[in-house]
Amino acid sequence: MNFNEKLQNAMKMNQSLLCIGLDPDPELMREGMSVSNFNKAIIEATADLVCAYKLNLAFYEVLDKGMESLKRTINAIPKNIPIIGDGKRGDIGNTAKAYAKAMFSTLGFDATTVSPYMGFDSIEPFTEYWEKGVFILCRTSNPGAADFQGLPFILDGKQVPLFEIVALKAAQWNKKGKGHNIGLVVGATYPEELKLIRHHHPKMLLLIPGIGTHGGELASAVRNGVDNWGQGAIFTSSRQIIYASKRRDFAQAARQVALSLRDEIRHLASTREK
Amino acid sequence: MNFNEKLQNAMKMNQSLLCIGLDPDPELMREGMSVSNFNKAIIEATADLVCAYKLNLAFYEVLDKGMESLKRTINAIPKNIPIIGDGKRGDIGNTAKAYAKAMFSTLGFDATTVSPYMGFDSIEPFTEYWEKGVFILCRTSNPGAADFQGLPFILDGKQVPLFEIVALKAAQWNKKGKGHNIGLVVGATYPEELKLIRHHHPKMLLLIPGIGTHGGELASAVRNGVDNWGQGAIFTSSRQIIYASKRRDFAQAARQVALSLRDEIRHLASTREK
Repeated sequence: MNFNEKLQNAMKMNQSLLCIGLDPDPELMREGMSVSNFNKAIIEATADLVCAYKLNLAFYEVLDKGMESLKRTINAIPKNIPIIGDGKRGDIGNTAKAYAKAMFSTLGFDATTVSPYMGFDSIEPFTEYWEKGVFILCRTSNPGAADFQGLPFILDGKQVPLFEIVALKAAQWNKKGKGHNIGLVVGATYPEELKLIRHHHPKMLLLIPGIGTHGGELASAVRNGVDNWGQGAIFTSSRQIIYASKRRDFAQAARQVALSLRDEIRHLASTREK
Repeated sequence: MNFNEKLQNAMKMNQSLLCIGLDPDPELMREGMSVSNFNKAIIEATADLVCAYKLNLAFYEVLDKGMESLKRTINAIPKNIPIIGDGKRGDIGNTAKAYAKAMFSTLGFDATTVSPYMGFDSIEPFTEYWEKGVFILCRTSNPGAADFQGLPFILDGKQVPLFEIVALKAAQWNKKGKGHNIGLVVGATYPEELKLIRHHHPKMLLLIPGIGTHGGELASAVRNGVDNWGQGAIFTSSRQIIYASKRRDFAQAARQVALSLRDEIRHLASTREK
Protein backbone atom coordinates (compact mmCIF):
# COMPACT_ATOMS: atom_id res chain seq x y z
CA MET A 1 0.00 0.00 0.00
CA ASN A 2 1.42 3.40 -0.88
CA PHE A 3 1.55 6.42 1.42
CA ASN A 4 -1.51 8.10 -0.05
CA GLU A 5 -3.67 5.00 0.35
CA LYS A 6 -2.40 4.36 3.85
CA LEU A 7 -3.13 7.96 4.77
CA GLN A 8 -6.64 7.86 3.26
CA ASN A 9 -7.40 4.67 5.14
CA ALA A 10 -6.16 6.09 8.45
CA MET A 11 -8.13 9.31 7.90
CA LYS A 12 -11.26 7.29 7.29
CA MET A 13 -10.71 4.72 10.04
CA ASN A 14 -10.02 7.35 12.71
CA GLN A 15 -12.22 10.08 11.21
CA SER A 16 -9.25 12.36 11.60
CA LEU A 17 -7.07 14.94 9.83
CA LEU A 18 -4.92 15.27 12.95
CA CYS A 19 -1.26 14.29 13.00
CA ILE A 20 0.62 14.21 16.28
CA GLY A 21 4.26 15.33 16.30
CA LEU A 22 6.30 12.99 18.46
CA ASP A 23 9.04 15.50 19.29
CA PRO A 24 10.42 14.41 22.65
CA ASP A 25 12.08 16.98 24.85
CA PRO A 26 13.38 15.47 28.11
CA GLU A 27 12.94 18.84 29.84
CA LEU A 28 9.23 18.90 29.11
CA MET A 29 8.58 15.20 29.59
CA ARG A 30 7.60 13.48 32.79
CA GLU A 31 10.77 13.17 34.84
CA GLY A 32 12.82 9.99 34.64
CA MET A 33 11.00 8.57 31.61
CA SER A 34 12.90 7.31 28.60
CA VAL A 35 12.05 8.90 25.29
CA SER A 36 10.80 5.68 23.77
CA ASN A 37 8.61 4.83 26.78
CA PHE A 38 7.19 8.35 26.72
CA ASN A 39 6.42 8.04 23.02
CA LYS A 40 4.94 4.56 23.44
CA ALA A 41 2.55 5.82 26.10
CA ILE A 42 1.45 8.74 23.88
CA ILE A 43 1.00 6.40 20.89
CA GLU A 44 -1.08 3.90 22.87
CA ALA A 45 -3.31 6.70 24.13
CA THR A 46 -3.85 8.39 20.75
CA ALA A 47 -3.48 5.87 17.89
CA ASP A 48 -7.26 5.79 17.30
CA LEU A 49 -7.41 9.58 16.94
CA VAL A 50 -4.80 10.39 14.29
CA CYS A 51 -4.29 10.07 10.55
CA ALA A 52 -0.50 10.05 10.96
CA TYR A 53 2.39 10.58 13.35
CA LYS A 54 5.25 12.92 12.53
CA LEU A 55 8.73 12.53 14.01
CA ASN A 56 11.04 15.51 13.72
CA LEU A 57 14.56 14.10 13.48
CA ALA A 58 16.20 17.00 15.32
CA PHE A 59 14.73 15.85 18.63
CA TYR A 60 16.29 12.41 18.21
CA GLU A 61 19.64 13.50 16.73
CA VAL A 62 20.24 15.67 19.77
CA LEU A 63 19.97 12.67 22.12
CA ASP A 64 22.86 10.40 22.97
CA LYS A 65 21.30 7.22 21.61
CA GLY A 66 18.66 9.05 19.65
CA MET A 67 18.56 6.76 16.65
CA GLU A 68 17.68 3.83 18.90
CA SER A 69 14.83 5.81 20.47
CA LEU A 70 13.69 6.78 16.99
CA LYS A 71 13.61 3.16 15.81
CA ARG A 72 11.80 2.00 18.94
CA THR A 73 9.22 4.75 18.45
CA ILE A 74 8.67 3.77 14.82
CA ASN A 75 8.19 0.16 15.87
CA ALA A 76 5.63 1.17 18.47
CA ILE A 77 3.34 2.82 15.93
CA PRO A 78 0.55 0.54 14.58
CA LYS A 79 1.32 -0.55 11.02
CA ASN A 80 -1.83 1.04 9.60
CA ILE A 81 -0.89 4.56 10.72
CA PRO A 82 1.54 6.32 8.34
CA ILE A 83 4.68 7.89 9.81
CA ILE A 84 6.15 11.11 8.47
CA GLY A 85 9.88 11.63 9.03
CA ASP A 86 10.31 15.38 9.32
CA GLY A 87 13.93 15.96 8.29
CA LYS A 88 13.72 18.83 5.75
CA ARG A 89 16.72 17.36 3.94
CA GLY A 90 18.09 18.80 0.72
CA ASP A 91 21.43 18.11 -0.96
CA ILE A 92 23.01 17.44 -4.38
CA GLY A 93 21.67 14.47 -6.34
CA ASN A 94 24.04 11.77 -5.18
CA THR A 95 23.74 12.83 -1.54
CA ALA A 96 19.98 13.28 -1.78
CA LYS A 97 19.87 9.67 -2.96
CA ALA A 98 21.57 8.61 0.28
CA TYR A 99 19.19 10.78 2.33
CA ALA A 100 16.16 9.31 0.55
CA LYS A 101 17.41 5.80 1.22
CA ALA A 102 18.10 6.72 4.86
CA MET A 103 14.58 8.08 5.39
CA PHE A 104 12.59 5.51 3.43
CA SER A 105 14.65 2.35 3.65
CA THR A 106 17.04 2.52 6.64
CA LEU A 107 14.48 4.21 8.92
CA GLY A 108 11.38 3.10 7.03
CA PHE A 109 9.29 6.28 7.09
CA ASP A 110 6.19 6.43 4.89
CA ALA A 111 6.76 10.07 3.97
CA THR A 112 9.24 12.85 4.55
CA THR A 113 9.69 16.60 4.30
CA VAL A 114 12.34 18.14 1.99
CA SER A 115 13.76 21.62 1.47
CA PRO A 116 13.46 23.11 -2.03
CA TYR A 117 16.43 25.52 -1.96
CA MET A 118 18.73 23.28 -4.02
CA GLY A 119 16.17 22.58 -6.75
CA PHE A 120 14.75 19.57 -8.52
CA ASP A 121 17.74 17.23 -8.49
CA SER A 122 17.80 17.50 -4.69
CA ILE A 123 14.16 16.36 -4.52
CA GLU A 124 13.87 13.82 -7.34
CA PRO A 125 15.69 10.99 -5.49
CA PHE A 126 12.94 11.20 -2.85
CA THR A 127 10.01 11.32 -5.27
CA GLU A 128 11.39 8.31 -7.12
CA TYR A 129 10.25 6.22 -4.18
CA TRP A 130 6.80 6.14 -5.79
CA GLU A 131 5.09 4.50 -2.82
CA LYS A 132 6.33 7.15 -0.36
CA GLY A 133 5.16 10.71 0.27
CA VAL A 134 7.32 13.81 -0.18
CA PHE A 135 6.30 17.17 1.31
CA ILE A 136 8.21 20.14 -0.06
CA LEU A 137 8.63 23.15 2.24
CA CYS A 138 6.56 25.96 0.73
CA ARG A 139 5.43 28.56 3.27
CA THR A 140 6.71 27.55 6.67
CA SER A 141 5.06 28.48 9.96
CA ASN A 142 7.93 30.44 11.57
CA PRO A 143 8.42 34.24 11.66
CA GLY A 144 11.61 34.00 9.55
CA ALA A 145 9.60 32.45 6.71
CA ALA A 146 9.15 35.96 5.30
CA ASP A 147 12.92 36.53 4.87
CA PHE A 148 13.10 34.66 1.57
CA GLN A 149 9.80 32.83 0.99
CA GLY A 150 7.87 36.08 0.87
CA LEU A 151 10.17 37.93 -1.52
CA PRO A 152 8.58 38.75 -4.88
CA PHE A 153 10.40 37.28 -7.87
CA ILE A 154 9.73 37.86 -11.52
CA LEU A 155 7.94 35.04 -13.27
CA ASP A 156 6.55 35.56 -16.78
CA GLY A 157 6.68 39.30 -16.27
CA LYS A 158 4.71 39.20 -13.02
CA GLN A 159 5.89 39.55 -9.44
CA VAL A 160 5.24 36.31 -7.56
CA PRO A 161 6.47 35.45 -4.06
CA LEU A 162 9.04 32.68 -3.85
CA PHE A 163 6.76 30.29 -1.97
CA GLU A 164 4.23 30.43 -4.82
CA ILE A 165 6.95 29.64 -7.34
CA VAL A 166 7.95 26.67 -5.19
CA ALA A 167 4.32 25.51 -5.16
CA LEU A 168 4.05 25.89 -8.94
CA LYS A 169 7.25 23.93 -9.53
CA ALA A 170 6.17 21.26 -7.06
CA ALA A 171 2.90 20.85 -8.94
CA GLN A 172 4.78 20.49 -12.25
CA TRP A 173 7.16 17.92 -10.76
CA ASN A 174 4.19 16.08 -9.29
CA LYS A 175 2.58 15.74 -12.72
CA LYS A 176 5.83 14.59 -14.29
CA GLY A 177 6.57 11.84 -11.77
CA LYS A 178 4.56 8.67 -11.95
CA GLY A 179 4.07 8.50 -8.18
CA HIS A 180 2.16 11.80 -7.90
CA ASN A 181 3.49 11.67 -4.39
CA ILE A 182 4.41 15.33 -3.81
CA GLY A 183 2.69 17.49 -1.23
CA LEU A 184 3.46 20.88 0.31
CA VAL A 185 4.25 22.15 3.80
CA VAL A 186 2.24 25.31 4.48
CA GLY A 187 2.10 26.76 7.98
CA ALA A 188 -1.22 27.46 9.72
CA THR A 189 0.24 30.75 10.90
CA TYR A 190 -0.13 32.36 7.45
CA PRO A 191 -3.86 31.88 6.68
CA GLU A 192 -3.90 34.14 3.60
CA GLU A 193 -0.96 32.37 2.01
CA LEU A 194 -2.54 29.03 2.86
CA LYS A 195 -5.76 30.11 1.16
CA LEU A 196 -3.84 31.20 -1.94
CA ILE A 197 -1.93 27.92 -2.16
CA ARG A 198 -5.14 25.90 -1.76
CA HIS A 199 -6.86 28.04 -4.40
CA HIS A 200 -4.11 27.49 -6.95
CA HIS A 201 -3.62 23.82 -6.07
CA PRO A 202 -7.06 22.46 -5.22
CA LYS A 203 -5.99 18.80 -5.18
CA MET A 204 -2.55 18.98 -3.61
CA LEU A 205 -1.98 17.25 -0.28
CA LEU A 206 -0.94 19.81 2.35
CA LEU A 207 0.96 19.23 5.57
CA ILE A 208 -0.04 22.06 7.89
CA PRO A 209 2.03 22.62 11.05
CA GLY A 210 1.59 25.45 13.51
CA ILE A 211 -1.98 24.87 14.69
CA GLY A 212 -0.94 24.44 18.30
CA THR A 213 1.81 26.14 20.25
CA HIS A 214 3.06 28.00 17.17
CA GLY A 215 0.01 30.22 17.44
CA GLY A 216 -1.88 29.45 14.23
CA GLU A 217 -5.59 30.08 14.39
CA LEU A 218 -7.26 26.71 13.98
CA ALA A 219 -10.49 27.77 12.29
CA SER A 220 -8.87 29.72 9.46
CA ALA A 221 -6.20 27.05 9.02
CA VAL A 222 -8.77 24.28 8.59
CA ARG A 223 -11.16 26.30 6.41
CA ASN A 224 -8.37 27.52 4.17
CA GLY A 225 -6.37 24.31 4.15
CA VAL A 226 -8.77 21.49 3.29
CA ASP A 227 -9.79 20.68 -0.27
CA ASN A 228 -13.30 20.76 -1.78
CA TRP A 229 -14.18 17.50 -0.07
CA GLY A 230 -13.02 18.71 3.36
CA GLN A 231 -9.95 16.48 3.02
CA GLY A 232 -6.47 16.70 1.51
CA ALA A 233 -4.78 18.24 4.51
CA ILE A 234 -2.88 16.93 7.52
CA PHE A 235 -2.90 19.21 10.56
CA THR A 236 0.04 18.60 12.84
CA SER A 237 0.40 19.52 16.47
CA SER A 238 3.03 18.40 18.92
CA ARG A 239 3.66 20.22 22.22
CA GLN A 240 0.08 21.22 22.83
CA ILE A 241 -0.78 17.52 22.89
CA ILE A 242 2.21 15.58 24.14
CA TYR A 243 3.06 17.98 26.95
CA ALA A 244 -0.51 18.57 28.09
CA SER A 245 0.54 17.31 31.52
CA LYS A 246 3.74 16.41 33.34
CA ARG A 247 1.91 14.28 35.83
CA ARG A 248 1.31 10.53 35.83
CA ASP A 249 -1.76 11.04 33.68
CA PHE A 250 0.25 12.68 30.85
CA ALA A 251 -0.86 10.13 28.26
CA GLN A 252 -4.52 10.51 29.17
CA ALA A 253 -4.13 14.29 29.19
CA ALA A 254 -2.59 14.03 25.71
CA ARG A 255 -5.55 11.92 24.62
CA GLN A 256 -8.02 14.53 25.86
CA VAL A 257 -6.34 17.34 23.92
CA ALA A 258 -5.94 15.17 20.82
CA LEU A 259 -9.58 14.09 20.99
CA SER A 260 -10.96 17.61 21.17
CA LEU A 261 -8.56 18.82 18.49
CA ARG A 262 -9.49 15.94 16.19
CA ASP A 263 -13.19 16.68 16.69
CA GLU A 264 -12.78 20.43 16.24
CA ILE A 265 -10.84 19.97 13.01
CA ARG A 266 -13.47 17.51 11.73
CA HIS A 267 -16.26 19.91 12.63
CA LEU A 268 -14.53 22.88 10.98
CA ALA A 269 -13.73 20.87 7.85
CA SER A 270 -17.31 19.65 7.42
CA THR A 271 -19.03 22.97 8.11
CA ARG A 272 -16.88 25.33 6.03
CA GLU A 273 -18.33 27.29 3.13
CA LYS A 274 -17.26 26.00 -0.24
CA MET B 1 40.03 28.07 20.24
CA ASN B 2 37.17 28.99 17.94
CA PHE B 3 36.52 27.52 14.49
CA ASN B 4 38.07 30.42 12.57
CA GLU B 5 41.30 30.25 14.58
CA LYS B 6 41.48 26.49 14.33
CA LEU B 7 40.94 26.74 10.57
CA GLN B 8 43.57 29.45 10.13
CA ASN B 9 46.07 27.38 12.12
CA ALA B 10 45.41 24.25 10.08
CA MET B 11 45.65 26.22 6.82
CA LYS B 12 49.01 27.58 7.90
CA MET B 13 50.35 24.37 9.41
CA ASN B 14 49.49 22.27 6.35
CA GLN B 15 49.86 25.06 3.79
CA SER B 16 46.49 24.02 2.52
CA LEU B 17 43.06 25.26 1.48
CA LEU B 18 41.97 21.70 0.72
CA CYS B 19 39.18 19.99 2.66
CA ILE B 20 38.55 16.29 2.15
CA GLY B 21 34.97 15.07 2.21
CA LEU B 22 34.74 11.83 4.17
CA ASP B 23 31.60 10.54 2.44
CA PRO B 24 31.83 6.76 2.66
CA ASP B 25 30.00 4.67 0.10
CA PRO B 26 30.42 0.92 0.71
CA GLU B 27 29.96 0.28 -3.03
CA LEU B 28 32.95 2.42 -3.92
CA MET B 29 35.14 1.46 -0.96
CA ARG B 30 37.60 -1.37 -0.80
CA GLU B 31 35.57 -4.53 -0.31
CA GLY B 32 35.02 -5.83 3.20
CA MET B 33 36.26 -2.71 4.97
CA SER B 34 34.26 -1.06 7.69
CA VAL B 35 33.38 2.59 7.14
CA SER B 36 35.32 3.73 10.18
CA ASN B 37 38.44 1.77 9.25
CA PHE B 38 38.24 3.12 5.72
CA ASN B 39 37.95 6.67 7.03
CA LYS B 40 40.75 6.14 9.55
CA ALA B 41 43.11 5.00 6.81
CA ILE B 42 42.24 8.04 4.67
CA ILE B 43 42.69 10.38 7.63
CA GLU B 44 46.07 8.92 8.59
CA ALA B 45 47.26 9.27 5.00
CA THR B 46 46.07 12.85 4.50
CA ALA B 47 45.91 14.72 7.83
CA ASP B 48 49.04 16.74 6.99
CA LEU B 49 47.55 17.92 3.69
CA VAL B 50 44.21 19.42 4.65
CA CYS B 51 42.79 22.49 6.38
CA ALA B 52 39.62 20.60 7.35
CA TYR B 53 37.60 17.44 6.91
CA LYS B 54 33.94 17.53 5.96
CA LEU B 55 31.51 14.74 6.82
CA ASN B 56 28.24 14.71 4.94
CA LEU B 57 25.67 13.23 7.31
CA ALA B 58 23.63 11.55 4.58
CA PHE B 59 26.34 8.93 4.04
CA TYR B 60 26.22 7.95 7.71
CA GLU B 61 22.45 8.16 8.22
CA VAL B 62 21.94 5.67 5.42
CA LEU B 63 24.08 3.04 7.20
CA ASP B 64 22.74 0.65 9.78
CA LYS B 65 24.97 1.81 12.62
CA GLY B 66 25.93 5.01 10.89
CA MET B 67 26.05 7.24 13.94
CA GLU B 68 28.65 4.97 15.53
CA SER B 69 30.79 5.12 12.38
CA LEU B 70 30.38 8.88 12.37
CA LYS B 71 31.53 9.20 15.97
CA ARG B 72 34.51 6.88 15.41
CA THR B 73 35.50 8.93 12.37
CA ILE B 74 35.30 12.18 14.32
CA ASN B 75 37.48 10.66 17.04
CA ALA B 76 40.07 9.57 14.49
CA ILE B 77 40.65 13.12 13.22
CA PRO B 78 43.56 14.94 14.89
CA LYS B 79 42.30 17.58 17.34
CA ASN B 80 43.98 20.44 15.47
CA ILE B 81 42.09 19.81 12.22
CA PRO B 82 38.58 21.33 12.18
CA ILE B 83 35.65 19.11 11.21
CA ILE B 84 32.70 20.40 9.23
CA GLY B 85 29.43 18.52 9.67
CA ASP B 86 27.63 18.90 6.36
CA GLY B 87 23.96 18.51 7.25
CA LYS B 88 22.25 21.46 5.51
CA ARG B 89 19.70 21.56 8.32
CA GLY B 90 17.00 24.19 8.56
CA ASP B 91 13.88 24.23 10.74
CA ILE B 92 11.76 26.49 12.97
CA GLY B 93 13.55 28.14 15.91
CA ASN B 94 12.89 25.59 18.61
CA THR B 95 13.79 22.69 16.33
CA ALA B 96 16.81 24.50 14.90
CA LYS B 97 18.00 24.82 18.49
CA ALA B 98 17.90 21.03 18.82
CA TYR B 99 19.71 20.61 15.47
CA ALA B 100 22.41 23.10 16.50
CA LYS B 101 22.91 21.25 19.78
CA ALA B 102 23.02 17.92 17.90
CA MET B 103 25.69 19.16 15.47
CA PHE B 104 27.86 21.14 17.86
CA SER B 105 27.41 19.44 21.20
CA THR B 106 26.12 15.86 20.73
CA LEU B 107 28.34 15.21 17.69
CA GLY B 108 30.94 17.89 18.42
CA PHE B 109 31.48 19.36 14.94
CA ASP B 110 33.49 22.60 14.64
CA ALA B 111 31.27 23.95 11.88
CA THR B 112 28.16 23.04 9.95
CA THR B 113 26.20 23.89 6.81
CA VAL B 114 22.63 25.22 7.01
CA SER B 115 19.85 25.86 4.51
CA PRO B 116 18.48 29.43 4.30
CA TYR B 117 14.97 28.69 3.00
CA MET B 118 13.26 29.13 6.38
CA GLY B 119 14.98 32.43 7.20
CA PHE B 120 16.87 33.93 10.08
CA ASP B 121 15.21 32.23 13.03
CA SER B 122 16.17 28.87 11.51
CA ILE B 123 19.85 29.92 11.39
CA GLU B 124 20.29 32.00 14.54
CA PRO B 125 20.38 29.04 16.96
CA PHE B 126 23.45 27.81 15.06
CA THR B 127 25.25 31.17 14.92
CA GLU B 128 24.71 31.63 18.64
CA TYR B 129 27.39 29.01 19.15
CA TRP B 130 29.97 31.80 18.75
CA GLU B 131 32.96 29.48 18.68
CA LYS B 132 31.53 27.36 15.86
CA GLY B 133 31.32 28.02 12.11
CA VAL B 134 28.07 28.22 10.14
CA PHE B 135 28.04 28.02 6.34
CA ILE B 136 24.80 29.12 4.73
CA LEU B 137 23.90 27.56 1.37
CA CYS B 138 24.14 30.32 -1.21
CA ARG B 139 24.81 29.07 -4.75
CA THR B 140 25.11 25.31 -4.64
CA SER B 141 27.14 23.22 -7.09
CA ASN B 142 24.34 21.07 -8.55
CA PRO B 143 22.41 21.59 -11.81
CA GLY B 144 19.12 22.16 -9.93
CA ALA B 145 20.66 25.17 -8.16
CA ALA B 146 19.24 27.37 -10.90
CA ASP B 147 15.62 26.35 -10.16
CA PHE B 148 15.21 28.80 -7.29
CA GLN B 149 18.63 30.28 -6.43
CA GLY B 150 18.84 31.90 -9.85
CA LEU B 151 15.39 33.52 -9.83
CA PRO B 152 15.49 37.29 -10.28
CA PHE B 153 14.19 39.51 -7.52
CA ILE B 154 13.82 43.29 -7.72
CA LEU B 155 15.99 45.06 -5.17
CA ASP B 156 16.37 48.85 -5.31
CA GLY B 157 15.14 48.85 -8.91
CA LYS B 158 17.63 46.21 -10.05
CA GLN B 159 17.16 42.51 -10.78
CA VAL B 160 19.10 40.47 -8.24
CA PRO B 161 19.08 36.66 -8.11
CA LEU B 162 17.96 34.92 -4.92
CA PHE B 163 21.44 33.59 -4.08
CA GLU B 164 22.77 37.15 -3.97
CA ILE B 165 19.99 38.17 -1.60
CA VAL B 166 20.91 35.22 0.59
CA ALA B 167 24.55 36.37 0.56
CA LEU B 168 23.52 39.93 1.43
CA LYS B 169 21.34 38.78 4.32
CA ALA B 170 24.07 36.42 5.53
CA ALA B 171 26.54 39.33 5.58
CA GLN B 172 24.09 41.44 7.59
CA TRP B 173 23.46 38.63 10.06
CA ASN B 174 27.20 38.09 10.33
CA LYS B 175 27.76 41.71 11.34
CA LYS B 176 24.93 41.59 13.87
CA GLY B 177 26.12 38.46 15.65
CA LYS B 178 29.07 38.75 17.98
CA GLY B 179 30.67 35.56 16.69
CA HIS B 180 31.10 36.75 13.08
CA ASN B 181 31.01 33.06 12.37
CA ILE B 182 28.93 32.94 9.18
CA GLY B 183 30.33 31.79 5.86
CA LEU B 184 28.75 30.84 2.54
CA VAL B 185 28.57 27.69 0.44
CA VAL B 186 29.25 28.56 -3.21
CA GLY B 187 29.84 25.79 -5.75
CA ALA B 188 32.94 25.72 -7.94
CA THR B 189 30.70 24.79 -10.86
CA TYR B 190 29.36 28.35 -11.22
CA PRO B 191 32.56 30.42 -11.61
CA GLU B 192 30.81 33.66 -12.60
CA GLU B 193 28.49 33.53 -9.62
CA LEU B 194 31.44 32.70 -7.38
CA LYS B 195 33.33 35.73 -8.70
CA LEU B 196 30.34 37.96 -8.04
CA ILE B 197 29.90 36.70 -4.48
CA ARG B 198 33.60 37.18 -3.76
CA HIS B 199 33.49 40.67 -5.27
CA HIS B 200 30.57 41.74 -3.08
CA HIS B 201 31.86 39.97 0.03
CA PRO B 202 35.65 40.31 -0.05
CA LYS B 203 36.19 39.06 3.50
CA MET B 204 33.58 36.32 3.79
CA LEU B 205 34.74 32.77 4.37
CA LEU B 206 33.60 30.55 1.50
CA LEU B 207 33.11 26.80 1.47
CA ILE B 208 33.54 25.72 -2.14
CA PRO B 209 32.43 22.21 -3.13
CA GLY B 210 32.42 20.79 -6.64
CA ILE B 211 36.09 21.05 -7.57
CA GLY B 212 36.42 17.31 -8.12
CA THR B 213 33.93 14.84 -9.49
CA HIS B 214 31.20 17.48 -9.74
CA GLY B 215 33.05 18.96 -12.72
CA GLY B 216 34.06 22.40 -11.47
CA GLU B 217 37.07 23.86 -13.20
CA LEU B 218 39.72 24.17 -10.52
CA ALA B 219 41.63 27.18 -11.85
CA SER B 220 38.62 29.48 -12.13
CA ALA B 221 37.22 28.24 -8.81
CA VAL B 222 40.43 29.05 -6.96
CA ARG B 223 41.07 32.37 -8.69
CA ASN B 224 37.50 33.53 -8.20
CA GLY B 225 37.07 32.05 -4.74
CA VAL B 226 40.01 33.19 -2.62
CA ASP B 227 40.17 36.61 -0.97
CA ASN B 228 42.76 39.37 -1.57
CA TRP B 229 45.31 37.48 0.50
CA GLY B 230 44.84 34.23 -1.42
CA GLN B 231 42.95 32.83 1.59
CA GLY B 232 39.39 32.84 2.93
CA ALA B 233 38.19 29.80 1.01
CA ILE B 234 37.94 26.09 1.71
CA PHE B 235 37.93 23.87 -1.38
CA THR B 236 36.27 20.54 -0.74
CA SER B 237 36.69 17.36 -2.71
CA SER B 238 35.56 13.87 -1.79
CA ARG B 239 35.23 11.08 -4.35
CA GLN B 240 38.14 12.17 -6.52
CA ILE B 241 40.39 11.66 -3.49
CA ILE B 242 38.92 8.95 -1.29
CA TYR B 243 38.03 6.62 -4.17
CA ALA B 244 41.25 7.14 -6.13
CA SER B 245 41.85 3.40 -5.88
CA LYS B 246 39.96 0.30 -4.76
CA ARG B 247 43.16 -1.66 -4.26
CA ARG B 248 45.14 -2.22 -1.09
CA ASP B 249 46.97 1.04 -1.70
CA PHE B 250 43.75 3.12 -1.62
CA ALA B 251 44.97 5.33 1.24
CA GLN B 252 48.27 6.07 -0.49
CA ALA B 253 46.43 6.70 -3.76
CA ALA B 254 44.16 9.12 -1.89
CA ARG B 255 47.25 10.83 -0.49
CA GLN B 256 48.72 11.29 -3.96
CA VAL B 257 45.58 12.93 -5.33
CA ALA B 258 45.20 15.07 -2.21
CA LEU B 259 48.84 16.14 -2.37
CA SER B 260 48.70 17.28 -5.97
CA LEU B 261 45.32 18.96 -5.43
CA ARG B 262 46.60 20.78 -2.33
CA ASP B 263 49.68 21.96 -4.24
CA GLU B 264 47.70 23.01 -7.31
CA ILE B 265 45.24 25.02 -5.23
CA ARG B 266 48.13 26.68 -3.37
CA HIS B 267 49.86 27.51 -6.63
CA LEU B 268 46.69 28.92 -8.21
CA ALA B 269 45.89 30.96 -5.10
CA SER B 270 49.35 32.52 -4.93
CA THR B 271 49.72 33.30 -8.64
CA ARG B 272 46.31 34.77 -9.37
CA GLU B 273 45.93 38.38 -10.54
CA LYS B 274 44.52 40.68 -7.91
